[in-house]
Amino acid sequence: MSQRPKRKRSLRRRQPPGTAPGTIDVDPSWLKSKVSVIAYGPDEVVERPLTGTKELEPLLARFPVVWINVDGLGDADVLREIGAAFKLHRLALEDVVDVSKRAKVDRFPDHLYIALVMVSLSENVLVTEQLSLFLGKNFVITFQERPGDGFDRVRERIRGGKGLIRKADSGYLAYALLDATIDGYFPVLEHFGERLEALEDSLVASPDTNMLSEIHGLRRELVVMRRAVWPMREALNFLLREGSDAFSLETRPYLNDCYDHAVQLMDLVENHREMASGLMDVYLSSMSNRMNEVMKVLTIMSTIFIPLTFIAGIYGMNFDSEAGPWNMPELKSPFGYVVCLAVMVTVAVVMVFYYRRKGWIGMPRRDP
Amino acid sequence: MSQRPKRKRSLRRRQPPGTAPGTIDVDPSWLKSKVSVIAYGPDEVVERPLTGTKELEPLLARFPVVWINVDGLGDADVLREIGAAFKLHRLALEDVVDVSKRAKVDRFPDHLYIALVMVSLSENVLVTEQLSLFLGKNFVITFQERPGDGFDRVRERIRGGKGLIRKADSGYLAYALLDATIDGYFPVLEHFGERLEALEDSLVASPDTNMLSEIHGLRRELVVMRRAVWPMREALNFLLREGSDAFSLETRPYLNDCYDHAVQLMDLVENHREMASGLMDVYLSSMSNRMNEVMKVLTIMSTIFIPLTFIAGIYGMNFDSEAGPWNMPELKSPFGYVVCLAVMVTVAVVMVFYYRRKGWIGMPRRDP
Amino acid sequence: MSQRPKRKRSLRRRQPPGTAPGTIDVDPSWLKSKVSVIAYGPDEVVERPLTGTKELEPLLARFPVVWINVDGLGDADVLREIGAAFKLHRLALEDVVDVSKRAKVDRFPDHLYIALVMVSLSENVLVTEQLSLFLGKNFVITFQERPGDGFDRVRERIRGGKGLIRKADSGYLAYALLDATIDGYFPVLEHFGERLEALEDSLVASPDTNMLSEIHGLRRELVVMRRAVWPMREALNFLLREGSDAFSLETRPYLNDCYDHAVQLMDLVENHREMASGLMDVYLSSMSNRMNEVMKVLTIMSTIFIPLTFIAGIYGMNFDSEAGPWNMPELKSPFGYVVCLAVMVTVAVVMVFYYRRKGWIGMPRRDP
Amino acid sequence: MSQRPKRKRSLRRRQPPGTAPGTIDVDPSWLKSKVSVIAYGPDEVVERPLTGTKELEPLLARFPVVWINVDGLGDADVLREIGAAFKLHRLALEDVVDVSKRAKVDRFPDHLYIALVMVSLSENVLVTEQLSLFLGKNFVITFQERPGDGFDRVRERIRGGKGLIRKADSGYLAYALLDATIDGYFPVLEHFGERLEALEDSLVASPDTNMLSEIHGLRRELVVMRRAVWPMREALNFLLREGSDAFSLETRPYLNDCYDHAVQLMDLVENHREMASGLMDVYLSSMSNRMNEVMKVLTIMSTIFIPLTFIAGIYGMNFDSEAGPWNMPELKSPFGYVVCLAVMVTVAVVMVFYYRRKGWIGMPRRDP
Amino acid sequence: MSQRPKRKRSLRRRQPPGTAPGTIDVDPSWLKSKVSVIAYGPDEVVERPLTGTKELEPLLARFPVVWINVDGLGDADVLREIGAAFKLHRLALEDVVDVSKRAKVDRFPDHLYIALVMVSLSENVLVTEQLSLFLGKNFVITFQERPGDGFDRVRERIRGGKGLIRKADSGYLAYALLDATIDGYFPVLEHFGERLEALEDSLVASPDTNMLSEIHGLRRELVVMRRAVWPMREALNFLLREGSDAFSLETRPYLNDCYDHAVQLMDLVENHREMASGLMDVYLSSMSNRMNEVMKVLTIMSTIFIPLTFIAGIYGMNFDSEAGPWNMPELKSPFGYVVCLAVMVTVAVVMVFYYRRKGWIGMPRRDP
Repeated sequence: MSQRPKRKRSLRRRQPPGTAPGTIDVDPSWLKSKVSVIAYGPDEVVERPLTGTKELEPLLARFPVVWINVDGLGDADVLREIGAAFKLHRLALEDVVDVSKRAKVDRFPDHLYIALVMVSLSENVLVTEQLSLFLGKNFVITFQERPGDGFDRVRERIRGGKGLIRKADSGYLAYALLDATIDGYFPVLEHFGERLEALEDSLVASPDTNMLSEIHGLRRELVVMRRAVWPMREALNFLLREGSDAFSLETRPYLNDCYDHAVQLMDLVENHREMASGLMDVYLSSMSNRMNEVMKVLTIMSTIFIPLTFIAGIYGMNFDSEAGPWNMPELKSPFGYVVCLAVMVTVAVVMVFYYRRKGWIGMPRRDP
Repeated sequence: MSQRPKRKRSLRRRQPPGTAPGTIDVDPSWLKSKVSVIAYGPDEVVERPLTGTKELEPLLARFPVVWINVDGLGDADVLREIGAAFKLHRLALEDVVDVSKRAKVDRFPDHLYIALVMVSLSENVLVTEQLSLFLGKNFVITFQERPGDGFDRVRERIRGGKGLIRKADSGYLAYALLDATIDGYFPVLEHFGERLEALEDSLVASPDTNMLSEIHGLRRELVVMRRAVWPMREALNFLLREGSDAFSLETRPYLNDCYDHAVQLMDLVENHREMASGLMDVYLSSMSNRMNEVMKVLTIMSTIFIPLTFIAGIYGMNFDSEAGPWNMPELKSPFGYVVCLAVMVTVAVVMVFYYRRKGWIGMPRRDP
Repeated sequence: MSQRPKRKRSLRRRQPPGTAPGTIDVDPSWLKSKVSVIAYGPDEVVERPLTGTKELEPLLARFPVVWINVDGLGDADVLREIGAAFKLHRLALEDVVDVSKRAKVDRFPDHLYIALVMVSLSENVLVTEQLSLFLGKNFVITFQERPGDGFDRVRERIRGGKGLIRKADSGYLAYALLDATIDGYFPVLEHFGERLEALEDSLVASPDTNMLSEIHGLRRELVVMRRAVWPMREALNFLLREGSDAFSLETRPYLNDCYDHAVQLMDLVENHREMASGLMDVYLSSMSNRMNEVMKVLTIMSTIFIPLTFIAGIYGMNFDSEAGPWNMPELKSPFGYVVCLAVMVTVAVVMVFYYRRKGWIGMPRRDP
Repeated sequence: MSQRPKRKRSLRRRQPPGTAPGTIDVDPSWLKSKVSVIAYGPDEVVERPLTGTKELEPLLARFPVVWINVDGLGDADVLREIGAAFKLHRLALEDVVDVSKRAKVDRFPDHLYIALVMVSLSENVLVTEQLSLFLGKNFVITFQERPGDGFDRVRERIRGGKGLIRKADSGYLAYALLDATIDGYFPVLEHFGERLEALEDSLVASPDTNMLSEIHGLRRELVVMRRAVWPMREALNFLLREGSDAFSLETRPYLNDCYDHAVQLMDLVENHREMASGLMDVYLSSMSNRMNEVMKVLTIMSTIFIPLTFIAGIYGMNFDSEAGPWNMPELKSPFGYVVCLAVMVTVAVVMVFYYRRKGWIGMPRRDP
Repeated sequence: MSQRPKRKRSLRRRQPPGTAPGTIDVDPSWLKSKVSVIAYGPDEVVERPLTGTKELEPLLARFPVVWINVDGLGDADVLREIGAAFKLHRLALEDVVDVSKRAKVDRFPDHLYIALVMVSLSENVLVTEQLSLFLGKNFVITFQERPGDGFDRVRERIRGGKGLIRKADSGYLAYALLDATIDGYFPVLEHFGERLEALEDSLVASPDTNMLSEIHGLRRELVVMRRAVWPMREALNFLLREGSDAFSLETRPYLNDCYDHAVQLMDLVENHREMASGLMDVYLSSMSNRMNEVMKVLTIMSTIFIPLTFIAGIYGMNFDSEAGPWNMPELKSPFGYVVCLAVMVTVAVVMVFYYRRKGWIGMPRRDP
């Protein structure tokens, strides 16, 4: 439910055709921007909220890597100011607020613009959010639609100073953020996988008409996942081919690893989609088998009783047996009733035997 | 309705096989051409209707960019005159009137020919129109089938002199027009998205046989959209690869941005198509579930009452119980009727119990 | 009907496996060959039937372009003679008579071999014919299976001397013939499009079981069209890439235009195929909706009357109400019949109400 | 039937995982190898069975082309001996006996290894056989699983000395054998085409439940054909691109012709597959239309008679009309019976009219 | 059954997003690692368990090839120690324990990392296991999830000293292990093929509702196979293109052979998938044919008896024939009963004749 309105909004924010490019046009309903900065080098870390771009100068001078994170896209001024401070390209800035939720990489002369889609689950509903990342010589700027992200472990690695991150350059930080974003897909896909398997189990146990909308819902969400994953793989591929000079030689194998993870994601998504299609097939067949079962019971009951009822009808007719010797003499026979019942039983037994031979009755078969 | 006749007409206008190439053959039913010109430079703008090509000479001499817009393709002479004045290639001119509604880019030695399809909605019906654009060193010529377009904001940007447009060259104007054309697809797709979601909601609420033609209609229109979008992406790709020397270095990133939008469009169209297919599946399954429901009610009613009616039939037979002791002595028994009713109730209860165990009766399940 | 036998024949004419390549093996049932020649230059045109290859020498010496057209492939000798006179490659000559109906281009050192498929409609049935075209420095040779073609307008352009054709070289003539062949597809496709739309209209009005074979027939013919169009596009692409040196610089843009038309054809064919698939879906759903309707009527009628008939059956039983006070005392009650009828009416009303609430009865819905 | 066991066998012959490469491991059930040799030059031909590799020396010295043909793969020694005499690569020799039935081309420093699949029909069942061909400077070696092949016409061309073959080198012989193998597919495909058309005709005439397994069988065999044809095209393409230096300049256009035939085959196979899918659709729809027909008859009969029977049931009730004036006074009316019959007829007529208006009864429509 | 929990586990082992790359994080439930070493040269072989990396020094000095095999990934320390001893890249080591079951090849400056998936059958259930292989100048290191593999024949070839393996370098050993892994797929696929054919046979004999879950299960397992085979082919392709310098010239054709086998596998998997889809179609059609059969019997029985029962009902009505001459005079006629029976028989015969002409009754047709 919560995912549908969002998609609508992202479309509604689109500027009217013919608007000048680079126009930064924010939605008044969006969250106000909150800017924070982490600046670090091998030996020290500074972490604090940012109130103006003037504070940046000394940080950029003192630290090899400055990471500015903006949560909420509601303040066009904040965006413009940061854009001006780092000379970010106006088209990239437009893309930050035009949350099309499509991964892409744009190369500008002195910085890279990387857009990715972050996925998470909120009360079992898939939520997508656009991450916009600018990578420059000594800075990384990230824009997110909402506060709350999967980067806390990266922040801890920076604070803790363990691993490579403090010794490495801004490219490595960008890699770490991309990697965390991509790795954030796995728990979501795992969740879908579990739902698919639960659905499969209950489908085998007892197919049910409201499984239809569940399968349909899962397929829709997998379509969203696929739309998120495919461009991500392309974007990473582009990054590896065209943008690798923004990354040091040591960082490149890590980027490659990222790409491998994206390929794995694609594999998983396609696999889940195939499973969902298979479930749909099984659901439809189960339903149709059920109907066959219903029809069989109807047929057996009807066809056994129809001739019997007819026979009973015959002897319920009121022809006057007094009127002539051919008028229902059976009714007067002392064994008429017994013979009649015997005929009925015989007919019924023959029918049952016939259906059993046809395989319609027999071993009590469980619904598939 | 209005879209189908149009497609037919565009086919009917085709010249007979074997006609000499470059023949400009207009349909007498088309709108008469109305030509207007906007010429501008950084400092001034002139905007007026054009009555003859002779007026162009001084404009071309005075302004860095001259934009001639032709609404209506009904005057072959106007086209020929403009073609002659700007030395446009005869094959391109033929394409202008041969409204095949397929985006393409042709490079000629001193100008580019770009054909795009403009889409709009007229009373919720998809309307397509061909935009033919010639881009030369200092001119842009656009041909449209009908007056009314999405370029008013571009005209205002020219008049207002804000943004880059007045300072830039003809390539930037061409980009601005392409961009406006492409951005014009988004509201149309949004409209389809909303119709799809409305359809999905009402499908979940109560599936209905006339949804079939609605889904079918949507799929047809999405096929038209796809046929429009795919070649557009190809044409823009070709423009980026082969025609980029007609654009200044500053304009190229903007063209790239255009291409990104076309890719997004493709994504959306494919997504909508997938949604429509999914809806079709859900519709079919819902219908089949409905039928199952119907069959189940029929089966339950029939199979419960069939044996009861048979029993009633038995005791409606007229065997003469006087004729012998075996002839329906039950009829004479003082408790015959009560026992008979009791047997009937027992049979009915057993059947109901059996169906409940089979899961055919039970929780009153809503139609999916 | 007429198209199926043809396909069979073209397969039957195939030479047995292991035959030496270049064997010219004609089918005795084929039409005798009729050869005609048109030779022209900027100033004069000669047009006459050809009786022997000796007549060619002076024509080739005098005119810049000589076009030899052969209708009917029944004379192996004629083919061999022409092959020898122009030194045509034996494999290409074999392809002329091995009418595989697949467009292709072969480059030989001093001539090009181009095979295309011409389509036309004969009494609303798709007819395909192979056109084999040899293009040399100053000659064009065309082979057709049957007389009658779409080249009359080209001949008139040669005779009339209007346009470029008389001034241009043999490459331009080849282009004009290719162009006429390709343009000949459009009316055929238009015909299919009209049949599809007529079918769609009547499907919406009243689905019918014999529409199935009509849709199936259309799909088959569209498969044939597709098999003709795809290789044509490939062949033209090959011609543009590899064979363009056989065409003058002025002719190449025209060839490009041909290629664009082939792409448009492909688009149309795919579009029509998709429409046909959509129709099939709609047909199947309509049929299944119809069945649902039938089932609903059956269910409603049956389930309303089944309990009523059972009640009637109860009171048709012959239990002797004299035998005891529990034996059907209702029969003796003065209001028994009225109460019984009242119960029946109540049951019927309740059922109707129940079905109406379920949505099975209600607004009289039209078949979709 | 005969094709399925074969596939199993070819899998069973596979060596256990981990076996050293190049192991020649024959199946004891295979036919013993029979080796024959044809050696020829422009002037003379020698043709005889081969008993040992020592006989080869003088032949290779005297003739420009030596063709050794081995029928039956049952003797590992024969294979090893020939492999040693011509220095064939051990992996290629392993492929000869590991009959995977997949076309491929391997280039070794001084010879080419070409594997193709030969198809034929044995009592209307598709039979596949692997042809392994080694092409060296002055020799061609072919290995076949069984005696009997489509090469007799090639042998006759060698014996007869007509055409190019005697004057050409070993590459031309290899081409001739490839060409004969590929051309051997056409009659098989033609056979499938005829079966498809026969099936289609009888499907239109009277759909039948056992057509299902026929269509299924055809589709399975077409899958086998496709698996044979696709790699063949790839192998030929590889041969044209990478292996063409093993062929003289004169032979290359012929190889190209081979490739064209493979492409035609692919086309035909895909076409047949599409036809088979179409038939399946038509079969399913016909069956479902049949069912609709059945349901309609059931519904019409039931719903017409159900109310009539109910009315009869009413007047079969035994309410005592003596007990009171409201107890079935109709029974005593002199026109009760006539009025009752009239009501029944009216009900029946109304129902028939209603169904006719719904289009369920009417023009006696033939089953599609 | 056993395959599903495994997939879940492999996902659950994934590290939380944002973890530093190269973290070796083992699952406590995994098997403890058991390390063994085989070192060999042309003349001698040493084979023993390994207790510490210090033992490796002398082996590496003395033998040209050292193969270390690790069964079980439960000891992070063992992995780290081996990683340190051979300077394996941390990302590759992370991949060893992050058992994503996706084949890949990574090139590092002084070693190659190759991940493959080994498949086997355990009680007819598909079991997959990741094989991680490091190939360096004079060593091969393999990591497996569980003891037991398909490499025993390779070990025997090393011990026995037959074939090339003892004389060759570490690249040849890596090839031998890859080859054994790939060849291990064939028996598994053969098993699936047999199950498919058994299913097909029993489907033709008597379709059954629980075949649905069998077909579904097979399709799921084939999806797993496909996910294993596709990346393997890609990985081998990458190895051939980019990593071939790690292999000697003599080994490369063998690698090529491996690649061919992977392509064959893909072919088989796709073929099996197509067969499974075909089976699903046949299953569904059979089920629907069955239902048609059921419906036909119901229709025939119902429609024959419905009018007969109605006639019996008519003469069961109690209209008082004394009340007037029009009140059921038939009941008094001496031949009333006989005529009535005759009418019934006539109606029944007419219906049977009608259904026979419609083809609904007739030749007793077997279920397909």
